[in-house]
Amino acid sequence: MGELLDRINKENDIKNIEPENYKKLAHEIREYILNNVRSTGGHLASNLGAVELTMALHLCADLPKDKIIFDVGHQCYTHKILTGRKEGFSNLRQYGGMSGFPRTHESECDIFDTGHSSSSISMALGLVSARKLTKDDYKVFACIGDGALSGGMAFEGLNNAARIRSNLVIVINDNQMSISKNVGGMSNYLGKIRTSKNYTGLKENVENTLGKIPGGNNLTDKIRSAKDVLKRVFIPGMLFEDMGLTYIGPIDGHNVNEMVKAFKSALNMNEPVIVHVRTKKGKGFKPAEKNPTKLHAVSGGSASVKGYSDVFGEKLLSLAQKDEKIVAITAAMPDGTGLAPMQKKMPKRVFDVGIEEEHAITFAAGLSKGGMKPVVAIYSTFLQRSYDQLMSDVCLQKLPVVIGVDRSGLVGADGETHQGIYDISYLSSMPNLVIMSPRDKVALEKNLEDAIKLNHPVAIRYPRGEAVELTFDSVLTGAYKFVEKIASDSISQAGIDFDSSNRAMFSELSRAESKLLIGYDGEYYKVGDEKPDSGDRNKCTFSDEYTEISADNSDYLIKYNDADVTIICVGTIAKEACMASVCLHHKGIKADVLDLCYVSPIDAKTVKKAAEKTRNIITLEEGVKSGGIGEKIAAMFSENPEVKVKNISLPDKFIEHGSVQILKDKYGLSLENICAEVEKLL
Amino acid sequence: MGELLDRINKENDIKNIEPENYKKLAHEIREYILNNVRSTGGHLASNLGAVELTMALHLCADLPKDKIIFDVGHQCYTHKILTGRKEGFSNLRQYGGMSGFPRTHESECDIFDTGHSSSSISMALGLVSARKLTKDDYKVFACIGDGALSGGMAFEGLNNAARIRSNLVIVINDNQMSISKNVGGMSNYLGKIRTSKNYTGLKENVENTLGKIPGGNNLTDKIRSAKDVLKRVFIPGMLFEDMGLTYIGPIDGHNVNEMVKAFKSALNMNEPVIVHVRTKKGKGFKPAEKNPTKLHAVSGGSASVKGYSDVFGEKLLSLAQKDEKIVAITAAMPDGTGLAPMQKKMPKRVFDVGIEEEHAITFAAGLSKGGMKPVVAIYSTFLQRSYDQLMSDVCLQKLPVVIGVDRSGLVGADGETHQGIYDISYLSSMPNLVIMSPRDKVALEKNLEDAIKLNHPVAIRYPRGEAVELTFDSVLTGAYKFVEKIASDSISQAGIDFDSSNRAMFSELSRAESKLLIGYDGEYYKVGDEKPDSGDRNKCTFSDEYTEISADNSDYLIKYNDADVTIICVGTIAKEACMASVCLHHKGIKADVLDLCYVSPIDAKTVKKAAEKTRNIITLEEGVKSGGIGEKIAAMFSENPEVKVKNISLPDKFIEHGSVQILKDKYGLSLENICAEVEKLL
Repeated sequence: MGELLDRINKENDIKNIEPENYKKLAHEIREYILNNVRSTGGHLASNLGAVELTMALHLCADLPKDKIIFDVGHQCYTHKILTGRKEGFSNLRQYGGMSGFPRTHESECDIFDTGHSSSSISMALGLVSARKLTKDDYKVFACIGDGALSGGMAFEGLNNAARIRSNLVIVINDNQMSISKNVGGMSNYLGKIRTSKNYTGLKENVENTLGKIPGGNNLTDKIRSAKDVLKRVFIPGMLFEDMGLTYIGPIDGHNVNEMVKAFKSALNMNEPVIVHVRTKKGKGFKPAEKNPTKLHAVSGGSASVKGYSDVFGEKLLSLAQKDEKIVAITAAMPDGTGLAPMQKKMPKRVFDVGIEEEHAITFAAGLSKGGMKPVVAIYSTFLQRSYDQLMSDVCLQKLPVVIGVDRSGLVGADGETHQGIYDISYLSSMPNLVIMSPRDKVALEKNLEDAIKLNHPVAIRYPRGEAVELTFDSVLTGAYKFVEKIASDSISQAGIDFDSSNRAMFSELSRAESKLLIGYDGEYYKVGDEKPDSGDRNKCTFSDEYTEISADNSDYLIKYNDADVTIICVGTIAKEACMASVCLHHKGIKADVLDLCYVSPIDAKTVKKAAEKTRNIITLEEGVKSGGIGEKIAAMFSENPEVKVKNISLPDKFIEHGSVQILKDKYGLSLENICAEVEKLL
Repeated sequence: MGELLDRINKENDIKNIEPENYKKLAHEIREYILNNVRSTGGHLASNLGAVELTMALHLCADLPKDKIIFDVGHQCYTHKILTGRKEGFSNLRQYGGMSGFPRTHESECDIFDTGHSSSSISMALGLVSARKLTKDDYKVFACIGDGALSGGMAFEGLNNAARIRSNLVIVINDNQMSISKNVGGMSNYLGKIRTSKNYTGLKENVENTLGKIPGGNNLTDKIRSAKDVLKRVFIPGMLFEDMGLTYIGPIDGHNVNEMVKAFKSALNMNEPVIVHVRTKKGKGFKPAEKNPTKLHAVSGGSASVKGYSDVFGEKLLSLAQKDEKIVAITAAMPDGTGLAPMQKKMPKRVFDVGIEEEHAITFAAGLSKGGMKPVVAIYSTFLQRSYDQLMSDVCLQKLPVVIGVDRSGLVGADGETHQGIYDISYLSSMPNLVIMSPRDKVALEKNLEDAIKLNHPVAIRYPRGEAVELTFDSVLTGAYKFVEKIASDSISQAGIDFDSSNRAMFSELSRAESKLLIGYDGEYYKVGDEKPDSGDRNKCTFSDEYTEISADNSDYLIKYNDADVTIICVGTIAKEACMASVCLHHKGIKADVLDLCYVSPIDAKTVKKAAEKTRNIITLEEGVKSGGIGEKIAAMFSENPEVKVKNISLPDKFIEHGSVQILKDKYGLSLENICAEVEKLL
């Protein structure tokens, strides 16, 4: 672990480290982070870049009395190491283990549970304003990256900071990157001043010098005061000074002593002070320094697989090659959202607007009005930032903007602040918005193509993780594994009768080379072009009052002539629905599986027919219950006493980090629970 | 109308007006606006201030080819007058009449349907980027107020504007006000430069002059270029220049010729240019110049009444006087939200953060962490801007922040962009959030007191308009009026049997001096302290998993021993529910009325008992169906074939402007329709 790190076991222990050992400690911390993140996965480059900065902050703060807010919080690993959480790194981001973000339940030294960008200044101002009223005297630091600083909310914070007459240290951690390369006016500005020398000390000297220049008086006549001129000429942070904020910098963000000095000066002022610190993302680890975008975050374990984001990006690129009206927008995530290949091929048609989700959506609305076909790719959790823009600037205008809602559903290791489990709820109450939810990568490609054709506001939600195709084989293999596992654990628990004849049947069925899974009459067929009753997902049409339209856009994945129950699902959880149907078949229960394909508008005609047929409906979705499709379908039959509807969804709560499978099992989306709920309903 | 105005009948007609007549035309426009708004109501001060500015824009634009985007759009009256919509002012903001905001369906010269703040730059950038790709050549103007400029989204726009190499004119309409007095760093900065002379023309001269100053070389050695120094010293808009944006100004916003000259210079540059224009809000109408906040918007017709906002603000003040931990936050609306009296009494405890809804909520989270009890008052439609902040920074942290959701439900004259009809949906899927929805002003006061005590994130939703108390008398009077109207119209239509004995009964009942309406066994009682079965709305308690708790917080407003149906309602529509019950009583139908009081958590225990009792449930809410309480209650009984649930709500669509009563009648929330739906269900 390193001998210095051995001496750090709780907050403030760093103060016992000798200044001459700071470099060595920084080195040990880097090694420690690197060794752990290699196996657990996590944010790498950002944490390596913020080691000395965090050390300097801890040297100036008395924790937990003083408050350090890390914007986003993905750079908090050193902070966790310095506050007694070294051991937590062995199970970082694992279920039950330490979070990759600040979490108040882990330590009193974490003041907020964070994960989204650009909010630290607002939080800090709240604390500072409260401190003034309660007459407390703790220090407050907001530590924000130059990427997060481009978010409008950070500007709102700065705008209000200028009015406060109480100390607050706003540290700009400037690594010239957000997740990908940083962009925009603020970034250009920081770039310009980051190469300046730190003139703060020099100011008075120069002021005296200028006083002696002949003709200087003439010049200063035209302006308010000599001091103001000087500031304008010599202080790099004039933009901030213009807003009324004191600026100190730029400071070397890998020199602990220099930062401590700057923070201490800043703490002496009775006002918010910006300390501009230059750091190198990935510092100390050559591959991360060289490619900070790729090593912004790493996954633990095996090689990377092709995800839904990649499928989305590739399909979009191929469509864009055929239609020059198509353009793409990302909010600082060209890599994460799979747009990087298109950005490389057609840089003028991919707009990276920075960490500015609000702007991204309204900018797309403008592009659409200008005749383009904009596609915005954005994570479900960050699209929450654009709720109003999507409602007011896209849906109200009925503009054909396509939103790729990436990381929809459970996201796993990033936890509470990143789960994409609210999008069905918040999107489906937006009038005019069509919401597609593909069951697999083939459907995703089809959806994207349809969405761009549809000439309507469309959101397509797809999950994080490996892009798979939902095939007959994959369902059977999945179900088989499940049944086998249950069999070897406890047959009675799942209530599934699993014997050797079933095993044989599974094997036999597995041999079918089916692309699409459709079963009739309890037999599983390979269904090709002649597929009966299959949905053509381009049939969906809309009138002005489209919510009244029963869009014909759902697909039966499994259909019996005479079924007992219909499992209605949306999205990639279709696989679990099909597996459940297979498992139930072996218990003598015939469960149709109807993939809604669209969250909105719901194919009410087909759903009603399904209800007439089986009278028992199970709804299944990877989202919270409140406002989900389950409630909507329940409401469809609330006046019909003959139809029973049971909703299976995630509970209405924040969901912690952990693998997606663990979370699905825990929160009711396990195959086991789906089967059990079906049996309970019947 | 004025002889010049007579000559303006469609877009571009202004170009035929002689320059010497601009002043006179401006005067005629002001008179016209003033005369109309006096009777119809509408935004007054902002429109009076923007007359010459709009004229100048129209003189520089070729409409509808060129695009002028008015941020928010409340200042678009002159634009409407100049684009052939003079006649529309007679029914401005009335149902079926002209909107008070830009609306694309009214004219090709309105490019977006707007209403929310700070989005114009993003929209404009989208158009400009599209124009570049489509090789079109129209001009684009974004016209934004200094208030809207403080919104983070505007900064995101500026940040991205700095990267675009294509013309865009961003006009800052600087009247030193948002709705109330403007605040913050950006505002201070504009204030500083608005008093500067316009040095833009002077620049070159000065540059030459400085070259001749002895010692000038010495000085410029220290900096990159003499030009840069000059800019820093002489250009007022250096903050914008620092971001990479060209700045022209300040310009007199009531001098048409000067503005035309500035716009034309700006249009000649191949980049976004900021033209800073100084105007006077309320210009030309002394009362509005003197009190622009009060005359920001005026209502047509009668004297102002005490609204729910006032009740909220007064109650908050009285609570704050007893508890010094209570602080209030507004996003530029101290008057609209009723916080002005508290702001006056305790200025240090009321924070007006500017038009910055995102910051407002997270700032409140910070205040709460700092030990204060923050109450944020914000309009329902603008709270949409803070969706993510409320979810991530308040609900996830479980912080006791109280949100006053003002203008909840239908708002009337402001139309599509201002209806507060989505808040039940978007708020109720937020974990940990308690949502109260008072039925009247008494309940609002009680709710606010409870909310602050609750030590939990709470939203209280209350409508626009006159604050009333729901009394026995008011219900009977309302029902009586309705029945009488129906009787005189067409008795059979409503199916209500109305004869003289009923009339007598109504009168008799009206005499009862009841504060709270509770009826048992078909008789209406005055119920005082001994009220049986009444809900104590402070009983609501929460565990960690509070969504599982059946909070006991609902109130029966009308209860029979043996009822046929239960009308379950939330919010002020409780009055319609009670009136419906009274009307139905005269048809022999016994309808219990259960006020949920809380949207979330729903008092499941009482609702289930109600369903057991009557087996017929009508839900009633002033919000869209999708994600509403109707769907939630339907889902509660979806497995129970014995309970029928019928949802009455607003449809899932955008709802136009018009009086609240007209809209209620049109969209199914009329007394008539409620009665009809009850009969249909039975």
